[in-house]
Amino acid sequence: MYDRVKGFRDFYPEEMQARRWAMDTLESVAKRYGFREIGTPALEPTEMYTDKSGEEIVEELYSFEDKGGRSVALTPELTPSVARMFVEKQQALSKPVKWVSTRPFWRYEQVQQGRFREFYQTNVDIFGSSDPAADAEVLAVAVDMLTDLGLTSEDFEIRVSHRDILSGLLESFDADVDTREAIRAVDKRAKVDRDEYLDSLYETGLSYDQAEAFDELLQSSEDELDTLAERSEAVAEATENLRAVLAATEDFGVRDHLTLSLTTARGLDYYTGVVFECFDSTGEVSRSVFGGGRYDDLIEGFGGQSTPAVGFAPGHATLQLLCQRAGVWPEETLSTDYYVLQVGDTRATAARIARDLRELGHVVEADVADRSFGAQMGYADGINAETVVIVGEQDLANDEVTLKEMDEGEQISVPVDDFPGDHDRPTFDDFA
Amino acid sequence: MYDRVKGFRDFYPEEMQARRWAMDTLESVAKRYGFREIGTPALEPTEMYTDKSGEEIVEELYSFEDKGGRSVALTPELTPSVARMFVEKQQALSKPVKWVSTRPFWRYEQVQQGRFREFYQTNVDIFGSSDPAADAEVLAVAVDMLTDLGLTSEDFEIRVSHRDILSGLLESFDADVDTREAIRAVDKRAKVDRDEYLDSLYETGLSYDQAEAFDELLQSSEDELDTLAERSEAVAEATENLRAVLAATEDFGVRDHLTLSLTTARGLDYYTGVVFECFDSTGEVSRSVFGGGRYDDLIEGFGGQSTPAVGFAPGHATLQLLCQRAGVWPEETLSTDYYVLQVGDTRATAARIARDLRELGHVVEADVADRSFGAQMGYADGINAETVVIVGEQDLANDEVTLKEMDEGEQISVPVDDFPGDHDRPTFDDFA
Repeated sequence: MYDRVKGFRDFYPEEMQARRWAMDTLESVAKRYGFREIGTPALEPTEMYTDKSGEEIVEELYSFEDKGGRSVALTPELTPSVARMFVEKQQALSKPVKWVSTRPFWRYEQVQQGRFREFYQTNVDIFGSSDPAADAEVLAVAVDMLTDLGLTSEDFEIRVSHRDILSGLLESFDADVDTREAIRAVDKRAKVDRDEYLDSLYETGLSYDQAEAFDELLQSSEDELDTLAERSEAVAEATENLRAVLAATEDFGVRDHLTLSLTTARGLDYYTGVVFECFDSTGEVSRSVFGGGRYDDLIEGFGGQSTPAVGFAPGHATLQLLCQRAGVWPEETLSTDYYVLQVGDTRATAARIARDLRELGHVVEADVADRSFGAQMGYADGINAETVVIVGEQDLANDEVTLKEMDEGEQISVPVDDFPGDHDRPTFDDFA
Repeated sequence: MYDRVKGFRDFYPEEMQARRWAMDTLESVAKRYGFREIGTPALEPTEMYTDKSGEEIVEELYSFEDKGGRSVALTPELTPSVARMFVEKQQALSKPVKWVSTRPFWRYEQVQQGRFREFYQTNVDIFGSSDPAADAEVLAVAVDMLTDLGLTSEDFEIRVSHRDILSGLLESFDADVDTREAIRAVDKRAKVDRDEYLDSLYETGLSYDQAEAFDELLQSSEDELDTLAERSEAVAEATENLRAVLAATEDFGVRDHLTLSLTTARGLDYYTGVVFECFDSTGEVSRSVFGGGRYDDLIEGFGGQSTPAVGFAPGHATLQLLCQRAGVWPEETLSTDYYVLQVGDTRATAARIARDLRELGHVVEADVADRSFGAQMGYADGINAETVVIVGEQDLANDEVTLKEMDEGEQISVPVDDFPGDHDRPTFDDFA
């Protein structure tokens, strides 16, 4: 009767269970590193984005006037909100501040595979450290999230780059270059053909020869960083910072998952140092899976004291595509520990057993619809119950219940008073 | 520089940790009963609410036109969304369907204590069973949620009523009564003075004498249900249903937390059978903490096949007020298992130790800001680290690290290769 809004999704239990597993995995990694969960509003003042976000985000904003005449917007990204929160309590917060949160965001954009108008991200940020170890910790969290999802170095690679190397190289040419536009051109490099790419660099102020030379520099390997460093003091400083970050990732045990890739630029303007993007190694998921980097100027732009910051935000939809491609996405089925099946007037006992099993922490369903034996068995099968406890009138007359394992079909009678007894997860084997 | 939108909240880590504990507690109870998590959109077609929700909700709607010209609304409640989802897959879903979800909702209403424009609820619903056991299971989940939060029968009571008893009684008078309006009047009974209450009943078609008589009937105790049943066939059926629900809650082990209270009516029009509300026993939290009930006609109203349904939705803000009043709300402080403190050039070892402790599942922070010993100690104290592992250059020269318990201040040197070793949660005592 009513249609869902285009680009918005419903998640039924089977899919939701797989998504919950993925979200819990991401959050649990961040929490083990001491990132603390925060909560943020779904609406913010529209001007926060029109002032601070990139043009693309502003064009895709869901904004409107509320009943109090405020212009408000559905949050299209988290960074402005956390910057606002950080600035509000900057004095009181003990630095570095390490925050994580998982929630939906909204952008009115073209709906396509892995891209929706309502999309979920887990945001991870550190405020208050410019030390290379902070960049490295963020990279370590990213790698641990991916490996905890079951992905290996065969499945993904994280390409690391540095904004100051890019801008330093651009400024080392004898030309008046619009650095911001040139970095945007680099960000689009893989999406356009070579002539279009060189044209776009030309439009930022480089000659065609310089554009070719610049692009060749971007393809430098790690061994060639020293050569790059010779081009200017700024480039030398940036390469030193990048090396220090990579050295820290070695200590943090994640260096093998990272490759240097100066053609990685990140689209957003606010990045200032190390930037990175995660890609599907096979290329089957063709877009960047997620990205992040350092943004040292943003907090000051929000009226706070100058505060270095670094972070990233895996989007769940592309991450799901990568996990599915790699075969590590869980089967989308329900799982249930016990179904307590009641036949005849046995509810008091069935309810007692269900309650005892739930107190042990198990997922336990019991009949709440007065169904027949067959209907209950069918339902138990449908929810993938592992063990069915049959509480029948006749068995109960003998003070027994029947335990049935749904996989093997084995079943056994058990004294009702011994069930669940001292067992943590009583099954056929405990009574056979 | 930017202000948060009025009625919207930021949650910093300390408060968020307490809220996360409460949310996890609620969800974990529902999941043990076999309720399955679903995910739903933040925006729905506006007409879904203007057609189906009560007047109050429609007045408080955040609705606007999106860039595609659709009239959309920020979801003010979950029920229409789950009804839409249920109808869409009604044939394929195996009944009863048991769904749970936790998320924010939005209403433009007066901001006051425990009431915000963005508010969080955990919704719990069963579709496809009219059996009293379904009502009872929902009541059992509600009680278990409260007791798992640490609340006892001293702290709360759940008042149970029945819409069909109320309407049956109203219809048993020799008067042409607007039942819906009369039930709304009962819902406001505690909020207005007696004359205003009787006036509002009078306006629905009862005489003043009948209004007095009706109100007296509403104060019947459980023993007097038989007397009520004599008034009409409809009342008799409804009292029988109510008794069956209460009997099932006895089997489910939660009967003691429930009291019969026919003056409980619930404001929303769509309820059809048993309804209930949770109250603070001390009355200090003066509003209803949450409520729920049976709504058997709603699915059909959304274009589905007639499907009985029952559910409830605890709001987290009032629940937090109750928990705080009862002294069971957790202290809002951070908790951290380990801080790995590095002094000098010891990052490789410190990082290895931090990694090993994280693999054991602990929350472990380490320096990412190149701070002094003192600054790190201060930070470790600020995040309430239980144990500090000091990795110093001199100790490491002797192949040792120092373990320091922050509470007692005890410390001990431990061979670096034995740490963490085989210990799950190594502390001073394991090495003393």
